[in-house]
Amino acid sequence: MELVEGARTAAVFTRNAFRAAPVVVAGEHLAALAPRYLLINAGNANAGTGQAGLTDARASCRALAEVAGCDPDAILPFSTGVIGERLALDRLTAPLEAMVSSLSADGWHDAAQAIMTTDTVPKAVSRRLQLGGVPVTVTGIAKGAGMIHPDMATMLAFVATDASIPQAQLQALLSSQVERSFNAITVDGDTSTNDACVLVATGMSGVELTESSSDYPAFYAGLQGVMIELAQAIVRDAEGATRFVAIRVEGARDENEARTAAFTIAHSPLVKTAFFAGDPNWGRILAALGRAGIQSLDIGRVGIFLDEVEVVRAGGVSPEYYEENGARVMSGEAFTVTVVLGRGEAATVVWSCDLSYEYVRINAEYRS
Amino acid sequence: MELVEGARTAAVFTRNAFRAAPVVVAGEHLAALAPRYLLINAGNANAGTGQAGLTDARASCRALAEVAGCDPDAILPFSTGVIGERLALDRLTAPLEAMVSSLSADGWHDAAQAIMTTDTVPKAVSRRLQLGGVPVTVTGIAKGAGMIHPDMATMLAFVATDASIPQAQLQALLSSQVERSFNAITVDGDTSTNDACVLVATGMSGVELTESSSDYPAFYAGLQGVMIELAQAIVRDAEGATRFVAIRVEGARDENEARTAAFTIAHSPLVKTAFFAGDPNWGRILAALGRAGIQSLDIGRVGIFLDEVEVVRAGGVSPEYYEENGARVMSGEAFTVTVVLGRGEAATVVWSCDLSYEYVRINAEYRS
Repeated sequence: MELVEGARTAAVFTRNAFRAAPVVVAGEHLAALAPRYLLINAGNANAGTGQAGLTDARASCRALAEVAGCDPDAILPFSTGVIGERLALDRLTAPLEAMVSSLSADGWHDAAQAIMTTDTVPKAVSRRLQLGGVPVTVTGIAKGAGMIHPDMATMLAFVATDASIPQAQLQALLSSQVERSFNAITVDGDTSTNDACVLVATGMSGVELTESSSDYPAFYAGLQGVMIELAQAIVRDAEGATRFVAIRVEGARDENEARTAAFTIAHSPLVKTAFFAGDPNWGRILAALGRAGIQSLDIGRVGIFLDEVEVVRAGGVSPEYYEENGARVMSGEAFTVTVVLGRGEAATVVWSCDLSYEYVRINAEYRS
Repeated sequence: MELVEGARTAAVFTRNAFRAAPVVVAGEHLAALAPRYLLINAGNANAGTGQAGLTDARASCRALAEVAGCDPDAILPFSTGVIGERLALDRLTAPLEAMVSSLSADGWHDAAQAIMTTDTVPKAVSRRLQLGGVPVTVTGIAKGAGMIHPDMATMLAFVATDASIPQAQLQALLSSQVERSFNAITVDGDTSTNDACVLVATGMSGVELTESSSDYPAFYAGLQGVMIELAQAIVRDAEGATRFVAIRVEGARDENEARTAAFTIAHSPLVKTAFFAGDPNWGRILAALGRAGIQSLDIGRVGIFLDEVEVVRAGGVSPEYYEENGARVMSGEAFTVTVVLGRGEAATVVWSCDLSYEYVRINAEYRS
């Protein structure tokens, strides 16, 4: 991907202690120069490759720099795929000249397709906002279907806008947005070595934004819409998933507690297999909540809803609950589990999915 | 199960905040009187049943007390099975008279069979020790195959010895033994609402033990053998499991760090599906380790072995590694993954298993 001269770029990377070579190099380059190109390959993660991997990542940047006529530091490399194998550098660099000459502003969909691995659908979202009468666009692509429990950003997401945003604010904006989008999804609780999310502001629309702009709230909401939709697209395409489940936790003492509860439920293999079966097995949800490590949690105050159906009241089955009502909600392809802790005002929502035979098959066969 | 008059009993229960009714009642009764009977039912966990569940658990104890002619407080109730349904009290109490009159010292195996739910084999272990020339027996049974990540003890284990041990020491002994046996296993990371482990010392052998007895180390080792074998039997019978995997973590700063690393690896769905596939996918092990939250972990110092095969050295693939060697180890039904952190002297081992289609099937179909 090519970024116009003057574009500002912010990025967040995986906090996994096991970082892939391109993540390390992209971080260095981002600190050195304003990026002009994002160089992305799928199929090989260039992770667990040690010094040789760093050398390969840097060599790939130099090769593109030669073709594009820019500084190698102006290139951010990204990789996704199998861990532990050297990059086939020839295969990566040979087509660079043809690729650079065929770059186009309409190439988003092709790019979304090109970065897929176990993804079954390309993930691209675009929104047109009107800010003070001027059209401003926010467009993003993402990939990811497994090893998804982003601790910063997920496996490769690239979002761009033609608004102009000061560099310092751009990074803060990305971090806060990621928290409520990519950091609020999970497929399997496994954090990738290659996670990266990039936000580019080109300024081409002529609209200049800062936190104090009157249009900032509208832009913030528009950007959030794009990022949440991309994040949800990853969960909807989760490996083997048959159901998309939003897990809302309300009445927590603070947001951190709400997140811990939501992710513990979302990661429970027993809850996930019950989702797969469409079985309103609320006992498994309570059991997962009970081991979430929430201090002095009183299960006797907890309530659970499946969409609008009250299933659990005061830690036991609700007197108004009929199992067919719970089963009806869970037979759907998408539903919301709401857990009310009854001990505070904080709430959060995370998005997750079920655990199916297909998840096991994909991850037992991939790289075999 | 009947305990002879004068037997001393120690117990540990789940630390899940969502505790089943029998766990609550057993705790109360244990504090009140020396137990004479353990009343165990399988099929219904009597969890998430609120006040009614407590009433049912107490009623079942009263019913047995009447038949057996003892105080209801001398009875510890245990339940395992489906969460969220009322006990069928009639079905539990009707056969009590016949059961009490048919109690026998040789009933361990029948008891092990009677407490099974999704277990495919009964789990019973017995060892005969010679302490100062006197034979002392340690016998135990356990059940459990899923919802296994004990945070105290696992889903119902009962161990008895005919040695005599002071009450205060018995509880300390049980707690320390559980830490290295039942608390060192995991199937799916889900902690049960009904976990309980009971240790009974009848004193019938005439051998009296305290921590300062010269025979204490031999007894401690014998008891540990029984408890570890029972704990491992649960993992070997884990729902859908095809492989038994020991995960050793060495070179940690402290044991807590080693346990965190080992359990994070053991719970990773991607690592577990690679185990299922027999795929020596060390990248997934490193990726799981990288998200374990170990402070300032340097992946560049980490080593990984599959049994005796060195796979990873200094965070990358070992120069002496050939994939067929790793694949050979992982094609076995049991193997050890050793992870060397290279930052301290602490080590631990946990026992776990793979994640198969069958786990998903069992947990999608159970209670449907």
